Amino acid sequence: MTGTSFFSDMVQTITERGRKLLSFAPRAERTQTSLTSLEKLCDMLLSSRGEASGMALAAEILQQWSRLNDGQQRDFMLLLAGKFGPDSDKLDKAIDTYRAERSAKAVLELHEAAEPRRQELIRRLNLAPNGISTLVRMRERLLELKIDTPDLEAVDADFAHLFTSWFNRGFLILRPIDWSTPAHILEKIIRYEAVHEIGDWDELRRRLAPGDRRCFAFFHPQLADDPLIFVEVALTKTIPETISDVLGEKRAPIQAQDARTAVFYSISNCQAGLRGISFGNFLIKQVVEDLRRDLPKLDTFVTLSPAPAFAGWLGRERRNEDSDVLTAEDKAALAVLDDADWASGTAGTADVKAALLPAAAWYFLRARTPDGRPVDPVARFHLGNGARLERLDFLADRSSRAMRQAHGLMVNYLYKLDDIETNHEAFAQRGEIVAAPAIRKLLRSIKPNRSAPAAERAGNAADSKELSS
Amino acid sequence: MTGTSFFSDMVQTITERGRKLLSFAPRAERTQTSLTSLEKLCDMLLSSRGEASGMALAAEILQQWSRLNDGQQRDFMLLLAGKFGPDSDKLDKAIDTYRAERSAKAVLELHEAAEPRRQELIRRLNLAPNGISTLVRMRERLLELKIDTPDLEAVDADFAHLFTSWFNRGFLILRPIDWSTPAHILEKIIRYEAVHEIGDWDELRRRLAPGDRRCFAFFHPQLADDPLIFVEVALTKTIPETISDVLGEKRAPIQAQDARTAVFYSISNCQAGLRGISFGNFLIKQVVEDLRRDLPKLDTFVTLSPAPAFAGWLGRERRNEDSDVLTAEDKAALAVLDDADWASGTAGTADVKAALLPAAAWYFLRARTPDGRPVDPVARFHLGNGARLERLDFLADRSSRAMRQAHGLMVNYLYKLDDIETNHEAFAQRGEIVAAPAIRKLLRSIKPNRSAPAAERAGNAADSKELSS
Amino acid sequence: MTGTSFFSDMVQTITERGRKLLSFAPRAERTQTSLTSLEKLCDMLLSSRGEASGMALAAEILQQWSRLNDGQQRDFMLLLAGKFGPDSDKLDKAIDTYRAERSAKAVLELHEAAEPRRQELIRRLNLAPNGISTLVRMRERLLELKIDTPDLEAVDADFAHLFTSWFNRGFLILRPIDWSTPAHILEKIIRYEAVHEIGDWDELRRRLAPGDRRCFAFFHPQLADDPLIFVEVALTKTIPETISDVLGEKRAPIQAQDARTAVFYSISNCQAGLRGISFGNFLIKQVVEDLRRDLPKLDTFVTLSPAPAFAGWLGRERRNEDSDVLTAEDKAALAVLDDADWASGTAGTADVKAALLPAAAWYFLRARTPDGRPVDPVARFHLGNGARLERLDFLADRSSRAMRQAHGLMVNYLYKLDDIETNHEAFAQRGEIVAAPAIRKLLRSIKPNRSAPAAERAGNAADSKELSS
Amino acid sequence: MTGTSFFSDMVQTITERGRKLLSFAPRAERTQTSLTSLEKLCDMLLSSRGEASGMALAAEILQQWSRLNDGQQRDFMLLLAGKFGPDSDKLDKAIDTYRAERSAKAVLELHEAAEPRRQELIRRLNLAPNGISTLVRMRERLLELKIDTPDLEAVDADFAHLFTSWFNRGFLILRPIDWSTPAHILEKIIRYEAVHEIGDWDELRRRLAPGDRRCFAFFHPQLADDPLIFVEVALTKTIPETISDVLGEKRAPIQAQDARTAVFYSISNCQAGLRGISFGNFLIKQVVEDLRRDLPKLDTFVTLSPAPAFAGWLGRERRNEDSDVLTAEDKAALAVLDDADWASGTAGTADVKAALLPAAAWYFLRARTPDGRPVDPVARFHLGNGARLERLDFLADRSSRAMRQAHGLMVNYLYKLDDIETNHEAFAQRGEIVAAPAIRKLLRSIKPNRSAPAAERAGNAADSKELSS
Repeated sequence: MTGTSFFSDMVQTITERGRKLLSFAPRAERTQTSLTSLEKLCDMLLSSRGEASGMALAAEILQQWSRLNDGQQRDFMLLLAGKFGPDSDKLDKAIDTYRAERSAKAVLELHEAAEPRRQELIRRLNLAPNGISTLVRMRERLLELKIDTPDLEAVDADFAHLFTSWFNRGFLILRPIDWSTPAHILEKIIRYEAVHEIGDWDELRRRLAPGDRRCFAFFHPQLADDPLIFVEVALTKTIPETISDVLGEKRAPIQAQDARTAVFYSISNCQAGLRGISFGNFLIKQVVEDLRRDLPKLDTFVTLSPAPAFAGWLGRERRNEDSDVLTAEDKAALAVLDDADWASGTAGTADVKAALLPAAAWYFLRARTPDGRPVDPVARFHLGNGARLERLDFLADRSSRAMRQAHGLMVNYLYKLDDIETNHEAFAQRGEIVAAPAIRKLLRSIKPNRSAPAAERAGNAADSKELSS
Repeated sequence: MTGTSFFSDMVQTITERGRKLLSFAPRAERTQTSLTSLEKLCDMLLSSRGEASGMALAAEILQQWSRLNDGQQRDFMLLLAGKFGPDSDKLDKAIDTYRAERSAKAVLELHEAAEPRRQELIRRLNLAPNGISTLVRMRERLLELKIDTPDLEAVDADFAHLFTSWFNRGFLILRPIDWSTPAHILEKIIRYEAVHEIGDWDELRRRLAPGDRRCFAFFHPQLADDPLIFVEVALTKTIPETISDVLGEKRAPIQAQDARTAVFYSISNCQAGLRGISFGNFLIKQVVEDLRRDLPKLDTFVTLSPAPAFAGWLGRERRNEDSDVLTAEDKAALAVLDDADWASGTAGTADVKAALLPAAAWYFLRARTPDGRPVDPVARFHLGNGARLERLDFLADRSSRAMRQAHGLMVNYLYKLDDIETNHEAFAQRGEIVAAPAIRKLLRSIKPNRSAPAAERAGNAADSKELSS
Repeated sequence: MTGTSFFSDMVQTITERGRKLLSFAPRAERTQTSLTSLEKLCDMLLSSRGEASGMALAAEILQQWSRLNDGQQRDFMLLLAGKFGPDSDKLDKAIDTYRAERSAKAVLELHEAAEPRRQELIRRLNLAPNGISTLVRMRERLLELKIDTPDLEAVDADFAHLFTSWFNRGFLILRPIDWSTPAHILEKIIRYEAVHEIGDWDELRRRLAPGDRRCFAFFHPQLADDPLIFVEVALTKTIPETISDVLGEKRAPIQAQDARTAVFYSISNCQAGLRGISFGNFLIKQVVEDLRRDLPKLDTFVTLSPAPAFAGWLGRERRNEDSDVLTAEDKAALAVLDDADWASGTAGTADVKAALLPAAAWYFLRARTPDGRPVDPVARFHLGNGARLERLDFLADRSSRAMRQAHGLMVNYLYKLDDIETNHEAFAQRGEIVAAPAIRKLLRSIKPNRSAPAAERAGNAADSKELSS
Repeated sequence: MTGTSFFSDMVQTITERGRKLLSFAPRAERTQTSLTSLEKLCDMLLSSRGEASGMALAAEILQQWSRLNDGQQRDFMLLLAGKFGPDSDKLDKAIDTYRAERSAKAVLELHEAAEPRRQELIRRLNLAPNGISTLVRMRERLLELKIDTPDLEAVDADFAHLFTSWFNRGFLILRPIDWSTPAHILEKIIRYEAVHEIGDWDELRRRLAPGDRRCFAFFHPQLADDPLIFVEVALTKTIPETISDVLGEKRAPIQAQDARTAVFYSISNCQAGLRGISFGNFLIKQVVEDLRRDLPKLDTFVTLSPAPAFAGWLGRERRNEDSDVLTAEDKAALAVLDDADWASGTAGTADVKAALLPAAAWYFLRARTPDGRPVDPVARFHLGNGARLERLDFLADRSSRAMRQAHGLMVNYLYKLDDIETNHEAFAQRGEIVAAPAIRKLLRSIKPNRSAPAAERAGNAADSKELSS
């Protein structure tokens, strides 16, 4: 209805103000920023009772931080870790009171006392115009630093805690991205695409402009120019078996209203600083609902996904003399995989396929990481969202990356709205992987003598329960 | 620039989706909702790992809550207090570990263990579309219940903690409100106006449509149809002495560009459920900046404010036989105040004025609450924002409310951008009240014999330091 | 899709510029504007080859015109009639050439020579920012003046010619009007409502806010703040028989998706200056299409319309001793109509109804104006749009206006998309009125002896052809 | 203000509807369209009294027209010329009446009778959704056909007449184009750029994204996705002497607020079908005003323009043995111009410059087309807009096109708001060219013996009056 535009206008101001601040920002003399001065500013911000001054202080701190060199940024994070934790005396006192009283009030005070001071600091830094954007970049840096500096784990926990709250699904906005989207947003789609690279604007156009293409992204009101995550969708008549069915330059577009299938062929997270704050599951569910409303004839929602860890896993099995999965014949058939050009010929792939697909079925259904999860990260994502493993596509992506990571294998995961919750619960709570019968059947072709002893299998509930729906 | 509208469109979806949900909401059979079932749903929501199911659960809980009767809502809050605190065993264990290790990791775990489970519950309730709106109403109810049920204090602390984070200044959007604002927003301006009642749409029009009127409100992206706080502004040539200078029906509007003064004559908080989450200071500062940019000739930013506790305080002094403030002559002069119509005659108010204004100066500059703060709540707000007490306006508002609360007294607080920080710091840290010389001078007319003994005065730094700027 | 907002932003500038011009317009010293100076300016504008100067000149002329008093405005129109016609010499020469050559070029030049110079003048006046708005007011004035000054007919023809081109359906924009529409637009809905008066904002709210109400208006890009025409719609289960079924304060709203019927109960033209430039037919057709798309269950589109000329016509028949329509008994039964309160009692209206409805059927189906058109103007509008006369509603509107104009009678016209074109052609080309069988049947109850002689009837094709569909 | 967005939303519908129609248009079986059927449809549209059916008819005709092949489109135009002129009988009668009466009414009827029926036809075709867009393409085709078929001149006159009315300045909207503009608009900027080609999106980005670049376009509400004309602007400190000062890839952007000069370095018309409907003068004037408001420090508005006819003219003079402009020495110095690479060396251009610049001064100030206008089309445009010829820039554009058309010469035209009207009038009415003194001075260096005899000069007022301001 009409009134919503009142609000839209309203929100423009955020962006406009932000841009103004960026473009008119005093071209600071880039004076040497010392950590000492930054620490002092942070103390001031924390003790400030005047929110008005708070905004200015927060802006100043974020600006100074942006100018720090790599080493200084690391030192700043260590400062947050070392000097902006909770006040020990206060915490000890709160613990004593809690132990003595065990009252609700004592719990409350204990919780407050245990909160690192940097949490409040980060909250106040968010007062600065466009503060959240710098905070996200700050965490991006932090995630890099954390690798070598485990002491920063606690700092990251505080960022993650606040980001989870601020990037709550309730605050996210789903937007279609198409060829009439502003160029500065599209430019980021090109940059952030993580699955099937977008070479240039012409290729972008081919992915967005035709009537049988869709793209959707989540945005946050405070990061209006920057998508958080996006998914690219192809509308097709049937489930595609190769990525070139979808992305081939010569393909003939179909009328959107003739499509029966929506193919999610690429999902990309955009903000490194938001790693671990998950949006993907919401995104797919929402997109399915929106597409169904717009195009009621759509009845199949499916991905065309990479299998990025497959080649690595298969290599290990091929080298494993006691492999449960591969027989000597299999290994012989798969030996050609070591030749980078194995698939370029027209002949000879039939044997590879016969050995590779059952192994792939095992990879998805039985293989587990040491902590008991499926080996394939993309599988974990979609199965965790309640999708079912629908089809394995042999030689579906012949790009060098896909050949290297998965010997060209791709996978379709099927999203069936009615089953999503059940599938999700089965996977989340009992580790069950829901798969199409055809994939389970592939597993059966694996000869008994190499399967795990009965006793072991009985011990692994998950394995014995791949379900089909 | 043009691109911002991309984002505005984007945000529309929030509202539109919300509205759709409201209007198409299944007209539930309003079955009896039992607390037991609600508690079970809350447990499910907390244990759910599937965010997709989370949205549905959250929506269901909020809907059921809305249907509870008053008693049930109270019981629900007590449930949150009793059963959704932290896990005691886990907390005790975390305390032990912390005491043993004192590591950063232990602090982090202690903090997490001390966090009441209801915080995460509230966070997840916010997953529901328009969840925040119900959560705000939930806290509104909670604030009422808290009065008689102190056990709910801890629950309120959790709501307040999360709201402070979610309604961070960084997420608020300032919007002008004018006669071209959508009617459903304006309707709320009429409803929420808390200082000078808006009788009907004609009166609203008089406050918004003329070229010398402005109004600004803060909004939150997730509460797009509902202002959080708004301020009404009159553009004038000089500082007005009475409210009828500003609101009189017959007044002749001036050209905006001829104005030198912006008068903030009404500031209203809109959401009872957000009490204590302060926006007002940001609002005024932002509005001053925006007005200055649009109308560079403006050089005076001032309020015309009520003094709601003045009559109460003066009554106590009049009854106080040992009043430091009022002499017997003063009391005699002020005796007419007991006559509700005292001001309606044309004569006789001069004596009242002579006794009342010095008392008012004392009320603002020296009178303190038991905990040491100025008695007047409006004064606390503006002085806390860094304004200075500029002028006392005798018989400035003859409405029955103003006559009852303040014997018609109004006050101008002056916002001078350059001094705001200094004033604020002086007030916040040292309790100093910055006032115009004319007001301090009024104080001097209070006879020595009734002032506090020198020793006492010396002991009270704040009193001896009313400053003028 | 997203890109459209680019354009929307784009159009904002029109309005904003217009407003700026209005509010910051130099408060001219309102110097005496003489017609002589205006004429000179018009000549300059016509001879100007610099379009840049044209804008300024046009703005100046329109501004001066607005300041003219009534007499001067009349003189200005006479000036347009007298001095801004075609150049006679040029025209005569063009005629001669045409007669000699009869070439396409000669026709073109003749057409140009015959064009009154004021057409180009009006076109150039439209260069002024917001020029069209003043031009519409100019024609509003012209239509008043024309009544007493037939010489202005030719001037009006030029305005009408240009307006028809500028307000081409292709340039009109249909917009829903609801409770979230900006107040300054809603204010105009209140003002322009011409059928069932809107008393105040509360009543407006009752017509716009409930889920079973709709309102749509046509706008023109250059008159963004001002609707051209609007229609109010009630969504109901059945075709309403009285206006209070639709507008009654106590009525219980239904869910929009439960409605089967859309009732157009009020259509109002807004701009007096656009009289004769018709939009209504487009409006209804477009609204029917939009409603069907949004609410697919709607299957009946019908009006609830006044019959503004009925009482006048009936009065003449009642006084007509040779009435073809009314017998003496009818006249006796209808005598109570002279009592203003005739309908307030509970009894006695049955006789009136028995006499009045057949007469009404005659009024709609057979009665004709001297130029052969149906007597009722509302009937002419809807029948001309292709609607069919569906039902006569006795005592359907008891407001004093309706009682005075139509003895409370209202009418339903039915819009059936499939029949619209046929109905329209039948009416437009052969004068046939398509009516429901029940209404035709009413006609039969009119006794033979008072019907027109057979010969006469045969002479009137239209009469013999009321059709039902 | 907020309300304008109501209107923006409103306008979105135009585009959205248009797009829907385009994308969902029934994929017609592309049956053979015969001209006979088209003629019949046109007759129906003209005789139709039902506007509702009119829309459908108009849409059908435009669709059929789009499917015609080239020959058929030509035949259709000839049909418009031959059968849709005025009705001769009616016209003759109207002439007779006019000659007899000479009344206003007779003039009106004569004008109407002389109007070709195709004018009304075109007006009615515009009823179709997005009709104007097809009509513009229709005229584009017509302009091509007209070259070989002069009979179509009259048809074109009708299109031009209506387009002038519909594309009235009052209906045009100025919009900034920047890097946040929707991609499908930017794509057209790339395509339509007519002066300095935009190679790819990276180059587009360099022209739009930096803070010291601006671009503005005129749009029409009914052609929302398609600019009519646009201008590219560089903000600089001084007037640039070469195009690479402006477009060089390596240039260092400046802060917009530091700029003193706005350089219009490219103006492109976009719609071939709107040739002769001029917008450029409005565009520049409006852009100057908008830039001045946003960046008050700007004090110089200047073009950097090509001189597309210079090389052609100079070649003729060089071959002309009786050249008034070039001496034998000049010709010798200019002989190197025949070598395509003449300018690539570092030496030797000084002699060329010394001979070329005075000739260029002559080219701009004295050279005339047979009908008395300046030879350079760009000069005619800017001088006609009221600019003054400010500076000649030697070897300012080394692109192959510029070298071929103008031996690399570029020109600065200065727009000084205060002088625009005077300059324009001088040029439009007296043919005077206003030029900077330095350019006039160049002329003086042309030796007396080759200048025109005094008598001749005296006879040419324009020549003797190059003015400086």
